[in-house]
Amino acid sequence: MRGSMLAVTAGLWMGAALGVANAAPRETRIPEPAMQTAAQLRQTALESDLGYRVIESLTTEVGPRLPGSEADARAVAWAEKKFRELGYDKVWLEPVTFPKWERRSESAQVLGANAQPLKITALGGSPAGTVEAEVVRFPDLASLEAAADGSLAGKIAFVDYEMQRARDGSGYGPGSRVRSRGPSTAIGKGAIGFLMRSAGTDSHRNPHTGITRFDEGLTPVPSAALSVPDAQQLSRLLALGPQRVRLAIDAGWNGTATSHNVIGEITGSKAAGRGKPQEVVVIGGHLDSWDLGTGAVDDGAGIGITMAAGALIGQLPKPPARTVRVIAFANEEQGLHGAKAYAEKYAKDIARHQIGAESDFGAGRIYAFATSAPPHAKAAEARIAQALAPLGIEHTPGKGGPGPDIGPLVERGLTWANLRQDGTDYFDLHHTPDDTFDKIDPKAIAQNVAAYSVFAYLAAAAEGDFGSAPKAPAPEAAK
Amino acid sequence: MRGSMLAVTAGLWMGAALGVANAAPRETRIPEPAMQTAAQLRQTALESDLGYRVIESLTTEVGPRLPGSEADARAVAWAEKKFRELGYDKVWLEPVTFPKWERRSESAQVLGANAQPLKITALGGSPAGTVEAEVVRFPDLASLEAAADGSLAGKIAFVDYEMQRARDGSGYGPGSRVRSRGPSTAIGKGAIGFLMRSAGTDSHRNPHTGITRFDEGLTPVPSAALSVPDAQQLSRLLALGPQRVRLAIDAGWNGTATSHNVIGEITGSKAAGRGKPQEVVVIGGHLDSWDLGTGAVDDGAGIGITMAAGALIGQLPKPPARTVRVIAFANEEQGLHGAKAYAEKYAKDIARHQIGAESDFGAGRIYAFATSAPPHAKAAEARIAQALAPLGIEHTPGKGGPGPDIGPLVERGLTWANLRQDGTDYFDLHHTPDDTFDKIDPKAIAQNVAAYSVFAYLAAAAEGDFGSAPKAPAPEAAK
Repeated sequence: MRGSMLAVTAGLWMGAALGVANAAPRETRIPEPAMQTAAQLRQTALESDLGYRVIESLTTEVGPRLPGSEADARAVAWAEKKFRELGYDKVWLEPVTFPKWERRSESAQVLGANAQPLKITALGGSPAGTVEAEVVRFPDLASLEAAADGSLAGKIAFVDYEMQRARDGSGYGPGSRVRSRGPSTAIGKGAIGFLMRSAGTDSHRNPHTGITRFDEGLTPVPSAALSVPDAQQLSRLLALGPQRVRLAIDAGWNGTATSHNVIGEITGSKAAGRGKPQEVVVIGGHLDSWDLGTGAVDDGAGIGITMAAGALIGQLPKPPARTVRVIAFANEEQGLHGAKAYAEKYAKDIARHQIGAESDFGAGRIYAFATSAPPHAKAAEARIAQALAPLGIEHTPGKGGPGPDIGPLVERGLTWANLRQDGTDYFDLHHTPDDTFDKIDPKAIAQNVAAYSVFAYLAAAAEGDFGSAPKAPAPEAAK
Repeated sequence: MRGSMLAVTAGLWMGAALGVANAAPRETRIPEPAMQTAAQLRQTALESDLGYRVIESLTTEVGPRLPGSEADARAVAWAEKKFRELGYDKVWLEPVTFPKWERRSESAQVLGANAQPLKITALGGSPAGTVEAEVVRFPDLASLEAAADGSLAGKIAFVDYEMQRARDGSGYGPGSRVRSRGPSTAIGKGAIGFLMRSAGTDSHRNPHTGITRFDEGLTPVPSAALSVPDAQQLSRLLALGPQRVRLAIDAGWNGTATSHNVIGEITGSKAAGRGKPQEVVVIGGHLDSWDLGTGAVDDGAGIGITMAAGALIGQLPKPPARTVRVIAFANEEQGLHGAKAYAEKYAKDIARHQIGAESDFGAGRIYAFATSAPPHAKAAEARIAQALAPLGIEHTPGKGGPGPDIGPLVERGLTWANLRQDGTDYFDLHHTPDDTFDKIDPKAIAQNVAAYSVFAYLAAAAEGDFGSAPKAPAPEAAK
């Protein structure tokens, strides 16, 4: 129980210990020939522009792909075709159904003596509505939370929190909390509209969208993010005196839609004794994007990096023992819908999923590597780290966590790996109109493809397991 | 005559030689005490944030100010009030009437298999209209010009010219020529719509607007600029195959509007013998802006820099001999309407206008200084240059030309001065939504204010003239 709690809180492996309580598992090792193949693969990947070209293809041919939209369906068809073109030997779709949110129009203006337009974007999940009201500014979420009940009656709440830039993206936690918690908190105080400074680190008139949720029992209100310069402008105006704003949003939930996880496999070796094609190493990204940009860094990059990594493994003279499975997840942005559907479908197959890693943190270079592998696989992890080191990747045992779409599998017992990207500039682009292909650096993508191909190949070639095992049911459920 | 042609082509002074053909004018000189005062003024300006605060006030309180709009009228009222607040002793308005152009809505989409929205902005002067047509790409204006007559019948022309970045802004000539000449050229070949890559150097989804004109006798067509990333995207799509685009613009000319040049003066000394308050040194910027941003670098900066420079001169214990006149010109953006009205009104007073300089090239530091002063004032110019040198400003005799709103006065014989700003980043922001106050560097503004105050003060304190004189009528008109 304590172990189970640790597994949840620290993301450390404990599951495999259950049921084999006193047996020390055989140490997992990476065969020496596999290290040599990985070194060649690394070099091939660094010299290849395949990942970059896949990102170009998706973002150009499909463009923005809001979950459930016509373009989302085109993205699914694109992914299936692209997997085949790239030589994946098994390609299939798995349906994912979710509520469909639509954005139709959005605008905001300061009214009165300083009349002027403001650049906004509706938060994903915002309802339609037009409100004209006085704006009340809060420097952060805590000060909104501290406002007296009813104090915002008939007002628009404005949380002007400034997200901080960091390589590891640690500023996004508090930044995105304004988006996830702000609207419901504001409604609780009586607000009839919600505005926030974008959870972003840029200084362009391109607001950052993203999903929000309204607490049960509340009546949702129009909710939007201002671009960073517009938030600063509104703050300057409020310093001059009270300001009334007109906020007009046409958007909302509209039934359900079905999209698909698109899956491609490079089948593992079928050689007697050596082959374990039924075991899979999972890598991937998410296929959907927000609608404002073309989803290049979020997450065309992850799709391009992992599709190319798998394809390069597929071009090796001999496949590794295990299958490399690349998943293009459906609808990550609005609630990990594809990831949850996948985890549910494969709940009983967790042990066959050796280890999983998602690329969903932009298009920057990878600077660190870690996994949640158990002690008997730590030497193998260190060998993988050794093969990644020439890419400028540091081994940071125990640090980090799974990518978002790997999370639901990890909750069910999957061992995660983490190839951490430099996210210093990621939140300049994330969820904005500026998330476009021109922002992609082909050399950084090649480095990512090299890292993912080396990681996936070596994990697939390892002798011995990485400790994935179904999680023991929680005590409450066991009763 | 030859001289007159030289004056027009090289911007060199010749006018004063007319009518005093063989008299060598007395050499203009800067008195030594004035140099000492200028040094103090320079230091005061470097330590002041006045220019920055004026820019903040205009861009925040008024925001975007399209000529003839309600906000333009607010900008006029703002300028009159601000001149008075800053201690100008004469402040007045002069009406300027011009055709009024309105932007109401604009959108574009790629249709068909790669359907996706494109970010555009209507060019100033574009008519309303919706067209759906195949796009034909041209890498530059010359290739559009070379297209066969009728070859664009029923098509949308797309000029994908990439403007080059340069400190002196020299890339803007060919860049803006696509905007000014592209639409008429395209119509001449049969096009029903016109798209161009923005004349800009950034990589954001913020298109650059700007005025265009349609040649007499042509039927104008909807004309817009794509943001740079959108132009790149459309080019990639066209490389895949033919593309149809829907271009929908609601905009157009709508009667006339009257705005105002707003003028403030720091009156020159009235001391007997020394004072020449009837003579003026002109500095200024333009008050109007495009509607997409808040006109911070174009040209809130010029307004703030020159208003502050004049105000600091006004705070000196003793005024200089001449009057410093600061002009906030109306409607520069759509055709120098304020500047032309001013030049016409004061055509007979050119000799009273000693020398003029406009700040209208962004908010970067000034790196070079020159004037079109005649030989007898070159020593005075060199002394002014000496007082500017501690600001990192190089003296580049004969180089450059007048700011846009000074141009019509120069055509009538005014001597110009040029305080050249570093424009390396100017065309990242120019005419875009991103032209907002947060892009302004207060230290660079202080350097500009220091330069303008030193220049205007010394020109106003000079003994002897700078050679402004009415231009001799052109031979044709003289007959």
